[in-house]
Amino acid sequence: MKLSRRNALLGGATGLAAAGLISGQANAQTQAWPAHSATIPAGPAQPPGRGYRPVVTPNGATLPFRIVDGVKVFHLIAEEVEHEFAPGLNATCWGYNGRVHGPTIEAVEGDRVRVYVTNRLPAPTTVHWHGVILPSGMDGVGGLSQRSIHPGETFVYEWTLVQHGTFMYHSHHDEMTQMALGLMGMLVVHPRRRRGPQPDRDFAILLSEWYLPAGASRPDPNAMSDFNILTMNARCYPGTEPLLVRRGERVRIRFGNLSAMDHHPIHLHGYAFRITETDGGEIPASAQHPDTTVLVPTGSTRTVEFVADNAGDWAMHCHMTHHVMNQMGHGLPNLTGVNARRIDRAVGQVLPTYMTMGQDGMGEMGRHIGMGHMDVPDNSLPMVGAEGPHDYITMGGMFTILKVRDQLPADGSDPGWYDPPEGTMARAARTDELRRDGIDV
Amino acid sequence: MKLSRRNALLGGATGLAAAGLISGQANAQTQAWPAHSATIPAGPAQPPGRGYRPVVTPNGATLPFRIVDGVKVFHLIAEEVEHEFAPGLNATCWGYNGRVHGPTIEAVEGDRVRVYVTNRLPAPTTVHWHGVILPSGMDGVGGLSQRSIHPGETFVYEWTLVQHGTFMYHSHHDEMTQMALGLMGMLVVHPRRRRGPQPDRDFAILLSEWYLPAGASRPDPNAMSDFNILTMNARCYPGTEPLLVRRGERVRIRFGNLSAMDHHPIHLHGYAFRITETDGGEIPASAQHPDTTVLVPTGSTRTVEFVADNAGDWAMHCHMTHHVMNQMGHGLPNLTGVNARRIDRAVGQVLPTYMTMGQDGMGEMGRHIGMGHMDVPDNSLPMVGAEGPHDYITMGGMFTILKVRDQLPADGSDPGWYDPPEGTMARAARTDELRRDGIDV
Amino acid sequence: MKLSRRNALLGGATGLAAAGLISGQANAQTQAWPAHSATIPAGPAQPPGRGYRPVVTPNGATLPFRIVDGVKVFHLIAEEVEHEFAPGLNATCWGYNGRVHGPTIEAVEGDRVRVYVTNRLPAPTTVHWHGVILPSGMDGVGGLSQRSIHPGETFVYEWTLVQHGTFMYHSHHDEMTQMALGLMGMLVVHPRRRRGPQPDRDFAILLSEWYLPAGASRPDPNAMSDFNILTMNARCYPGTEPLLVRRGERVRIRFGNLSAMDHHPIHLHGYAFRITETDGGEIPASAQHPDTTVLVPTGSTRTVEFVADNAGDWAMHCHMTHHVMNQMGHGLPNLTGVNARRIDRAVGQVLPTYMTMGQDGMGEMGRHIGMGHMDVPDNSLPMVGAEGPHDYITMGGMFTILKVRDQLPADGSDPGWYDPPEGTMARAARTDELRRDGIDV
Repeated sequence: MKLSRRNALLGGATGLAAAGLISGQANAQTQAWPAHSATIPAGPAQPPGRGYRPVVTPNGATLPFRIVDGVKVFHLIAEEVEHEFAPGLNATCWGYNGRVHGPTIEAVEGDRVRVYVTNRLPAPTTVHWHGVILPSGMDGVGGLSQRSIHPGETFVYEWTLVQHGTFMYHSHHDEMTQMALGLMGMLVVHPRRRRGPQPDRDFAILLSEWYLPAGASRPDPNAMSDFNILTMNARCYPGTEPLLVRRGERVRIRFGNLSAMDHHPIHLHGYAFRITETDGGEIPASAQHPDTTVLVPTGSTRTVEFVADNAGDWAMHCHMTHHVMNQMGHGLPNLTGVNARRIDRAVGQVLPTYMTMGQDGMGEMGRHIGMGHMDVPDNSLPMVGAEGPHDYITMGGMFTILKVRDQLPADGSDPGWYDPPEGTMARAARTDELRRDGIDV
Repeated sequence: MKLSRRNALLGGATGLAAAGLISGQANAQTQAWPAHSATIPAGPAQPPGRGYRPVVTPNGATLPFRIVDGVKVFHLIAEEVEHEFAPGLNATCWGYNGRVHGPTIEAVEGDRVRVYVTNRLPAPTTVHWHGVILPSGMDGVGGLSQRSIHPGETFVYEWTLVQHGTFMYHSHHDEMTQMALGLMGMLVVHPRRRRGPQPDRDFAILLSEWYLPAGASRPDPNAMSDFNILTMNARCYPGTEPLLVRRGERVRIRFGNLSAMDHHPIHLHGYAFRITETDGGEIPASAQHPDTTVLVPTGSTRTVEFVADNAGDWAMHCHMTHHVMNQMGHGLPNLTGVNARRIDRAVGQVLPTYMTMGQDGMGEMGRHIGMGHMDVPDNSLPMVGAEGPHDYITMGGMFTILKVRDQLPADGSDPGWYDPPEGTMARAARTDELRRDGIDV
Repeated sequence: MKLSRRNALLGGATGLAAAGLISGQANAQTQAWPAHSATIPAGPAQPPGRGYRPVVTPNGATLPFRIVDGVKVFHLIAEEVEHEFAPGLNATCWGYNGRVHGPTIEAVEGDRVRVYVTNRLPAPTTVHWHGVILPSGMDGVGGLSQRSIHPGETFVYEWTLVQHGTFMYHSHHDEMTQMALGLMGMLVVHPRRRRGPQPDRDFAILLSEWYLPAGASRPDPNAMSDFNILTMNARCYPGTEPLLVRRGERVRIRFGNLSAMDHHPIHLHGYAFRITETDGGEIPASAQHPDTTVLVPTGSTRTVEFVADNAGDWAMHCHMTHHVMNQMGHGLPNLTGVNARRIDRAVGQVLPTYMTMGQDGMGEMGRHIGMGHMDVPDNSLPMVGAEGPHDYITMGGMFTILKVRDQLPADGSDPGWYDPPEGTMARAARTDELRRDGIDV
């Protein structure tokens, strides 16, 4: 018995065993009309999928569910959350279930899912399931597909997942405001039947951007440009948790981007990866190419995969240079090359202990602030970085570290910094080398 | 007899029957040098192509032509136009033939085309045919390929179309100014020989962005960022005409982007589509992938295709959240979470009736302005939306609706709002459901 | 004997003949795990590669090397440089070896390379080799992979190239500041074994953006938006050197982008090209598609290829309209359509001779400044262009010209402007034509 996809979407509220198989998106690629919907013929909901390898959301969490009469039941609570972007920098945001961003939702293709959404915010809201094929009335666009959920109300969304892939959820009511305050999360649907080797590590990272004036307690949703807090899973470096991988493992990273305005180019050091998936589905092998930077347009997901065969501590970050800075790295006067004495007096009114830095760049400023040599306003973050293994790391914002090791601690804890083998680290040149190689310094 | 492409470009002013066939871009993909020009060997112009299914330009028009001695003759008149972006918001722009943007030009591969351009603007101008392979002197770059067309003059461009696809035309003289004022349009070249199933619906949408201060009468071409009018075919929601499709039809949407600065990520709800074409030509099936958001870089076209098998009212919009707002949604002070009493007095000087909104977001503001509860400056647009079927739709700008129905009115009129089948719409949860599913609210 | 890639990276400091072959990235595409690292099994370093066709860096230079004991030895000197963006516009920047940007580094897959970096800047720095697979300690991220190089020090980086392709190098210490001042260059690795036809012309163009207030002597690295100097190889039009090609030649252009914030859409007139490579490696033929505009995300390279079969002078430029303007085209008041008399008095305080232009756009302004009819501040560039063959070219910034000719001067000099064949240039329409074609002007 082959039931239509429409039947599956409308299908009975409790999951009966499926009569037909979900044929998957692969078939879609072989049909004569080269560009059709990813929607697929599907039977009714299947038994709740189990046995997948869970996704890891660094700095995040996964939404628990219970199974009631064959339906996976989730509960999202939209509410105000006191959120820490990095140690020393907090703000009152809007999130789900006490988190910013909301926890990652995981399910399996063919599952019947039911999501209750409780609104504890002071404003109406909705939830849109970005990239998910579902009935129009479950799409979550306030006004267009449903009445918005008023403060205090609980709404219920329910549908059958007819696809697998990497998706997102977010408010779609007054979305400029509500997304800028943090109402978003990742949604991962595992395939019902796996094909080929699976990843050993499967990470989900949601990119977003905020404007938080130094000392302010709430992000400003009206900012259109010059964002000053750039985050991976709502954390900025040095608040981002590193990605831990054993050498030789297959690694998948699922990037989502729900930034207000920017398409973030995420660059991984030490590797080339392939882009294997968008929020529309899998990219066939014939259409893949190697890359080291994946441009994740806002309102999109991009999944990358690679074999982690190169040991080390590898930077992974947005390549927009102002997006690897923190809050205070923006909007300062240009002091490069300036004899700073007179300028100091003016700048000193904002940063009282500011004295002699800046005329050669910003690299030293984060360290001096960290050491207490410079004052910064309450609840603000120095523009750069953290102490690294060899020197101060002059990076912040949308920056994290992929740590690839021959061995990892069994308890999942951070292995510390990489210790490169003899002769594999940049170092000061010796005089005899310079002479041998004819280098005139 | 096989004539060279160069001969075709230079070929006689009137179209003789072609001696050779236009072989199409498919051949280009099989040659040894993997990346060469899309230009193709072609004979002289062929008889004027007919019999194609015309493109629909929502909110737009198609440029009429006449055939003179086998040549398709078009006439563009560059002139000032009073343009309505949406009801209540007008400006003096620059357009063609009384329209902003100019009408869509349609022709067929192998056609000989002659375009007269009359300049009724107060400044010199030119027309560039973006993506079109033609002789250097017909390329329309002011100064480089021709003398600019002075006010009052009529110039003539003429060449043979050696390709098919989705292209654009726009001023290429003082283009920062002239494009910001609206001098642009779409140019579609149908294939001489169709291969495979054709779309049932074929839409053309040109994206652009404007900066129009509230109350101003002309767009400001000097704005480099923070654009406040974001348009599809020069209209912003609720001024955009919905796309009407019968369920099961093959749909093609040709996006062009001639915005000053932004690459717009256009997201379609309810579907995954394939990206089948750029302004360089067709994307072969092996290189296609499914997606739900197509990033259209400025200075590019992207064609997407899908089968509309999912009934409903589906949002289609730029996913930059400030691009689904209208003019007044930008640049307001951040009131989120603020006890608004003191702030009200300050804001009230700009928006006299402004009182208690904003501290919980912008969602209610559009509705209240629409109901006359708030004053707005003359000739300006509330930041958001329109009344929808279930609630106020808090969207504006680069936003439209794809309406997919089992039946459409025979006269092409709007079918109204979608009425979802029983049990397929998000709704308030019942107490017994909450109890059954163990949801604690 | 097949040695591991890890051995190759750590391998002996002097190059012995390789025991195994470098198998290349092609293999990677056929393995079962569809998305793995581009890293490849490789033996130790091979004899220094020779015999490749050198890349041409317009307006730039190639870094010389010497071979010592089988190792290619390079020397980069980071230092302040007085740089000319275009005639009349200079600034004090940071570069390498007296150039902004640094010279292009060329080597061959399998080479052992040793790069000495001398720091003559007033601040610590490092060099990161973007896209290059190498040991973690050679990756050049200040603090994370090494101690930063202090002023006066010389560091040495050494590794074996296990890949080929188009890469970049740049400071990765205080990179927001140091890259904004110019510390970057291209790095091209030729394949050890060539496959298929090779390009006749192979160009490298590095895109970047700067903020230099009119009259200032140093770029401002704190600017996050509204950049006003947009460059190809650190030059803006009319300072950019044209690309000279004989008709029918195979052309490769390798674009790199290390702009602070923008993803530049580079549009080529007269052709469609294919995108054949990223900084991650080659794009297989099955995944290529034709295009006329390549979006180069910042922190990425994109290589395009085409056969130059269309003679002419072809514009190639960023399609963001404010990026084909020069410094003074930004931030002016909107005068379009204004009766300018009163405005003139206000503007006149900034531009003393400003009188009647602007109300019809900016097209005439560059020419008048060039003719001395308008004063501009010292060390600033009019907003647009240069005299062209037919008229004033109203373009600046990230703009250059591809000159395709049947013959080129043997000495490599500029062939001058293109002279289009009779009947192939846009021109004023004659009265008899208008009458014949029924055009009413």
